[in-house]
Amino acid sequence: MSVLVVGSTALDSIKTPYCEHTRLLGGSASHAAVAASFFAPVKLVGIVGDDFPKRYVQLYRKHGIGLEGLQITPGKTFHWAGEYEMNMNNRRTLTTELGVFETFTPNLPEAYRQTPFVLLANIAPALQHHVLDQMRRPKFVVADTMDLWLNIALNDLMKLLRRVDAFVLNDSEAHQLTKEDNVFAALQKIHKLGPKYVIIKKGSHGSILSGPNGFFLAPAYPLHRVVDPTGAGDTFAGAMIGYLAHARGGLDANLRRAITYGSVVASFCCEGFGLIGTTKITRRTIEQRVKELEKLVRF
Amino acid sequence: MSVLVVGSTALDSIKTPYCEHTRLLGGSASHAAVAASFFAPVKLVGIVGDDFPKRYVQLYRKHGIGLEGLQITPGKTFHWAGEYEMNMNNRRTLTTELGVFETFTPNLPEAYRQTPFVLLANIAPALQHHVLDQMRRPKFVVADTMDLWLNIALNDLMKLLRRVDAFVLNDSEAHQLTKEDNVFAALQKIHKLGPKYVIIKKGSHGSILSGPNGFFLAPAYPLHRVVDPTGAGDTFAGAMIGYLAHARGGLDANLRRAITYGSVVASFCCEGFGLIGTTKITRRTIEQRVKELEKLVRF
Repeated sequence: MSVLVVGSTALDSIKTPYCEHTRLLGGSASHAAVAASFFAPVKLVGIVGDDFPKRYVQLYRKHGIGLEGLQITPGKTFHWAGEYEMNMNNRRTLTTELGVFETFTPNLPEAYRQTPFVLLANIAPALQHHVLDQMRRPKFVVADTMDLWLNIALNDLMKLLRRVDAFVLNDSEAHQLTKEDNVFAALQKIHKLGPKYVIIKKGSHGSILSGPNGFFLAPAYPLHRVVDPTGAGDTFAGAMIGYLAHARGGLDANLRRAITYGSVVASFCCEGFGLIGTTKITRRTIEQRVKELEKLVRF
Repeated sequence: MSVLVVGSTALDSIKTPYCEHTRLLGGSASHAAVAASFFAPVKLVGIVGDDFPKRYVQLYRKHGIGLEGLQITPGKTFHWAGEYEMNMNNRRTLTTELGVFETFTPNLPEAYRQTPFVLLANIAPALQHHVLDQMRRPKFVVADTMDLWLNIALNDLMKLLRRVDAFVLNDSEAHQLTKEDNVFAALQKIHKLGPKYVIIKKGSHGSILSGPNGFFLAPAYPLHRVVDPTGAGDTFAGAMIGYLAHARGGLDANLRRAITYGSVVASFCCEGFGLIGTTKITRRTIEQRVKELEKLVRF
């Protein structure tokens, strides 16, 4: 089955202590769509300006991503610039130029409205609502978010949580949302806000799935060096929903494996700038790391 | 086979945002010895003053812990007082009264010198060396440490690392020792200092075993509330070596399970002040949580 991915499509300029790259393909929808494309047909909804490099359109196409919902309008593509500290965890934003993204309304092509799996990648909760308003009985809806929306659009986000099947956030966002230091206590509170499934990402410490059948403690794939973590969370969510759309069988077991695939594809993402790490891989290299993870947690 | 545990034996006064307890049984050797006692016969080597409550001697005895090496001398028992912040991770020391511990020399009873499994629980590396000097060809030696020794006795610790089979430390100590932000890069550096096996504890994020057969990513048992984490690391190391001493079969597989048992017994430790959580359990309740952990990581 196919996946609809709605989110930001951007150009990222990223600086780390080792290296710098400008105007790489980025944005939550780009990372998530490419990650999902290894498992299932993907339809992308986003907006770019007329400065958007043709090679990035080709990159989407190479991954078989449907672009009927990619709006190309006069103006500049959303541009984000950020810098990472030595530990690769702390980052600061240097520039945010919204460009055409400022007026983005994610109107779905008619053919997209019946897509069974929907990833509301990180964008303003009001836009995530707008997408859901257009959908016809999707099978499974996953929402991602970021600290910004907890700060400036909490009400919209709270309403969204009542409309989605699964909510993905990181540990510091979970703390911000619930004021709980303990991640399991935070999970309990987040379920009460609506989502049946909650996934808390803990970066190199792995992630936790919480659902009606209890917890799943998912490992992160061991990386000796992180080149650029930008987009790793989007990649995680994208690979996760892509795997879900592709898998047969029970949702609970599928979700555990989907999260494991999310971890693995996110590990490749961290090994290169922007989408460089993710676009190098194949289904075969993904399967190898999943098998390695199986061995790494066995006792 | 039996386990020798050498470390501190203390009275702990612990304050958390919720509660306060004074003069509880504590110290690295107390926590480790009780934890190991669920799996194997334990011999304790430590020192206490003549103020040491009889009920604590009885507690050791109840767990079948050999006390021939527990020196009871005129003076005061080592007393530590500390306070935890709301998140239960940051703690500050309020009082350290060394008492008789200041003059502690861990002289081993003759019968203890052939013990096959040795845990050098957290004490000064010079004392850990002194214990090893007296041992006759132990089968497996594990050393634990703390940030204090990295600060004031690094040379002694470096020499110790060449004499032990396994070294247990937490992630911030690993960072302090190697200057590496990445835990897997830190593990590589620590192996070069001597130990064949290195275990890095990450608190609620679990732990990582690194050895000749690669990594094992060990989960922490999910706790919704931590009452008091004091001694959790000592408990982890104690249960780990206790399980190893008890298990038959290959060392690598045994170590993976030993670390899982370490995690589980440490989780019980965190559920009560001092040794209250750990002393409530039985081998059966331990096995239940190990089985739960197996389900929690399966995918």
